[in-house]
Amino acid sequence: MSLKERVYHFIEPDHEPGRIVDVAIIVLILLNIVALILETVESIYNLNRAAFELFEDFSLTVFAIEYLVRLWAITANPRFSHPVTGRIRFVLTPLAIIDFLAILPLFLPPPTVDARFIRVIRVIRIFRVLKLVRYFRALRLLGHVIADRKEELVSIFLVLLILLALSSSLMYLVEHEDQPEVFTSIPATMWWSIVTLTTVGYGDTYPITALGQTIAAVIAILGIGMFALPAGLLGAGFVDALAAHRSEDSERRCPHCGELLDE
Amino acid sequence: MSLKERVYHFIEPDHEPGRIVDVAIIVLILLNIVALILETVESIYNLNRAAFELFEDFSLTVFAIEYLVRLWAITANPRFSHPVTGRIRFVLTPLAIIDFLAILPLFLPPPTVDARFIRVIRVIRIFRVLKLVRYFRALRLLGHVIADRKEELVSIFLVLLILLALSSSLMYLVEHEDQPEVFTSIPATMWWSIVTLTTVGYGDTYPITALGQTIAAVIAILGIGMFALPAGLLGAGFVDALAAHRSEDSERRCPHCGELLDE
Amino acid sequence: MSLKERVYHFIEPDHEPGRIVDVAIIVLILLNIVALILETVESIYNLNRAAFELFEDFSLTVFAIEYLVRLWAITANPRFSHPVTGRIRFVLTPLAIIDFLAILPLFLPPPTVDARFIRVIRVIRIFRVLKLVRYFRALRLLGHVIADRKEELVSIFLVLLILLALSSSLMYLVEHEDQPEVFTSIPATMWWSIVTLTTVGYGDTYPITALGQTIAAVIAILGIGMFALPAGLLGAGFVDALAAHRSEDSERRCPHCGELLDE
Amino acid sequence: MSLKERVYHFIEPDHEPGRIVDVAIIVLILLNIVALILETVESIYNLNRAAFELFEDFSLTVFAIEYLVRLWAITANPRFSHPVTGRIRFVLTPLAIIDFLAILPLFLPPPTVDARFIRVIRVIRIFRVLKLVRYFRALRLLGHVIADRKEELVSIFLVLLILLALSSSLMYLVEHEDQPEVFTSIPATMWWSIVTLTTVGYGDTYPITALGQTIAAVIAILGIGMFALPAGLLGAGFVDALAAHRSEDSERRCPHCGELLDE
Repeated sequence: MSLKERVYHFIEPDHEPGRIVDVAIIVLILLNIVALILETVESIYNLNRAAFELFEDFSLTVFAIEYLVRLWAITANPRFSHPVTGRIRFVLTPLAIIDFLAILPLFLPPPTVDARFIRVIRVIRIFRVLKLVRYFRALRLLGHVIADRKEELVSIFLVLLILLALSSSLMYLVEHEDQPEVFTSIPATMWWSIVTLTTVGYGDTYPITALGQTIAAVIAILGIGMFALPAGLLGAGFVDALAAHRSEDSERRCPHCGELLDE
Repeated sequence: MSLKERVYHFIEPDHEPGRIVDVAIIVLILLNIVALILETVESIYNLNRAAFELFEDFSLTVFAIEYLVRLWAITANPRFSHPVTGRIRFVLTPLAIIDFLAILPLFLPPPTVDARFIRVIRVIRIFRVLKLVRYFRALRLLGHVIADRKEELVSIFLVLLILLALSSSLMYLVEHEDQPEVFTSIPATMWWSIVTLTTVGYGDTYPITALGQTIAAVIAILGIGMFALPAGLLGAGFVDALAAHRSEDSERRCPHCGELLDE
Repeated sequence: MSLKERVYHFIEPDHEPGRIVDVAIIVLILLNIVALILETVESIYNLNRAAFELFEDFSLTVFAIEYLVRLWAITANPRFSHPVTGRIRFVLTPLAIIDFLAILPLFLPPPTVDARFIRVIRVIRIFRVLKLVRYFRALRLLGHVIADRKEELVSIFLVLLILLALSSSLMYLVEHEDQPEVFTSIPATMWWSIVTLTTVGYGDTYPITALGQTIAAVIAILGIGMFALPAGLLGAGFVDALAAHRSEDSERRCPHCGELLDE
Repeated sequence: MSLKERVYHFIEPDHEPGRIVDVAIIVLILLNIVALILETVESIYNLNRAAFELFEDFSLTVFAIEYLVRLWAITANPRFSHPVTGRIRFVLTPLAIIDFLAILPLFLPPPTVDARFIRVIRVIRIFRVLKLVRYFRALRLLGHVIADRKEELVSIFLVLLILLALSSSLMYLVEHEDQPEVFTSIPATMWWSIVTLTTVGYGDTYPITALGQTIAAVIAILGIGMFALPAGLLGAGFVDALAAHRSEDSERRCPHCGELLDE
């Protein structure tokens, strides 16, 4: 086995997760998330600015090396064996795109004085959390579930959009006159519709006329179930997928030692 | 095949959706919805008033022609073959009524100075969204589900009304004295009941006395499930219907080419 | 068949609902509910005070006659055949108690000047809505479902009470110092717990400290499911019972005429 | 049977619940909870300070005696038969730890003037409610359900944490500029995420920009289902476990007298 093949099998955690390098990268990703979250707390950031910057530079270096090693070793994978086209195809896979986004700040101009731009650059690093998808099957399952239920989800979203248009137009018609500064337009009323139909109900906008409240009651009682559908479908699919994988695992493992049988 | 029969089969998308004329009408309907929604944003409307009016005139013309063509060609359908009574029965079908409502503004007096009336006319056009029912099976399924579960829905609504009457009367009795301007009457308290039992909870009305809060807690814990029933029933029925149609499709289609087999 | 037996079979709608006398009483009950609800709207009440009082007197008379007739005829029922002890046992059945409560105002002292007492007397009439249970199977089903699931419900309420005590004590401990006027005591904090765990979320009380918000998040994510259980259990049981009765009906009825077969 | 064995079988309610000593301890625990809850209501506490303190001393004494008796008699249980190591292992079982926590105040320094510390000591007594676990199977079932679903729950919490990080970062990015005092940092925005995704929706924080509201709508529609999963999983598992135990019971009981058969 060549060095490249060894490296490839070392970094691809598909079959034997839990290696030391995997754990190290997972920990680094989690620390990145924690750092990003804490950075936005001004009191913490001001006291540890240098440490945050050092950690970011370190992370960028590690992720860049990881990316280059993956790019070098990927040709050991028969699906991407061609040195040029194989690597290009690899670079365009979802996981490789996530890896690239994680090191994107390397290719951006140095931070300017535009506070908003700096914040965007900083916060966008949150997508490094998606690097975890490579290491946790549960996250990949969620992707499969969405792909599996695509057809139903599209149908449901069509219905949701129509419900949203109808309920927002109706409420705008009924409440605009009495609350012109709240139900200013149909797009603004859509916020009311979503807050109501997901049952979140912040209380920033609500009908005050008797007619508006009556219509809102009917909309809520009939519509809440439709808005709960996509979330319920994904949740149920995810739990099913988790259960299916668990029983699959138990079949493939030795009941005595717990090791996988046909590995 | 006569011209009328050809036209009929051309505009009736029951078996072969996706024709160019269908796509054109779907796009026009969607643009109508977008236009209506944007019109209510004052800044956008004031800048593009002429464009909006032109687009409305164009849409009205197209929908009117569509309506007349359907009315002319419908006698090619054996169910509506009689030139007079067939057409009258067709005009009274739900889809034809929706089509007629879409062109209703043609038959209304020119807009007056009454701002409210103008807004009603304008917003009522949102029901053009229902024209989409002809082109999307998912929307028709929803109608079937409601018809299918009618008996259960009626029973549930009876229970909901009684729960609503009981909980509103109780809360009115307990809270009226302490919050006479919030729980002014039982009809006003019904708004509280619905906002609570759907778990929306805007926070515009809530009990403040210890007794009121205790009763509200009991009402909420026991009643929330009943108010979730109609929505849950419709949602579950819709998902089942989607799944059933999908498996039905896979049976009727050639596994090699994906074409329908008994068309 | 004696007159009493005829009367008994006439007023007991167990097997042949839909008689004219049933419909009349159902309509009278519904009108009573509507009247009670409208009475609490001051503007309506002040304009129609005499009509409301007349209608109440009329209703009381009808319900009293109905009660006496039932009491007289009940001995035609073998279960209550003894003229004295049968009638006493009948008077103590749930339906007879509801009927008695509906005419209770006859036995109360004339309205005094105590506004609160008058309101209690007036609103308590809402329980006349329970007279509908005799005429609608869906309402009786709900009672059966509660009886059926009693054991589970008791277990769940035990868990809910413990959750409520734990979460309220914890939040009181954490938030009392920072919001002494909101989380004044554990009983007051229980209102927060219930509003949160039922996901109603009025927004009248919520944690503001970081620790309180963290604990609230954990409580919410884990506890919401438990508080949804009793409602979900009753709802699911009710829908099952409705479905079971429907299929039972279809078995017992003639498929040609729709009449019951073994009546 | 030695005295120790008799005592052991007397206090261990595993097979024959309902003895007088069990009922007495259950009542004492419940009274403790009620006392603790009422103590936090200042008006009640100030009037009955001496009674509350007396009752606490009494409870501590009873619980201490109970603890010592259990510790003495436990060696009658074959699993803990060794006088020293058996008792040490017993002391570390969850139920024994709960029993010890209930008498912890005995080992703490006398109350000082630090009001906060006194409150912590007082409220921490709420965990005495967990002593009920020994006497109610429903509470033990809940523990089994959590252990049973551990694997799924861990996977779901991983997904929830990632969703929480992504949605909070996104909303912070979008809303921070317009509401710097509300969405101050990502940890602060996490409170918004949890309040929204559990559909509680207090209304203390919500997006006000059009972009923020649009992103919030997408997050809500897709994410609510995931946050409902752990609660739903536990709730469903609990109901299943209750039903399973009920049918198990009915098998083991005599259908005539209701007594357990193989006791």
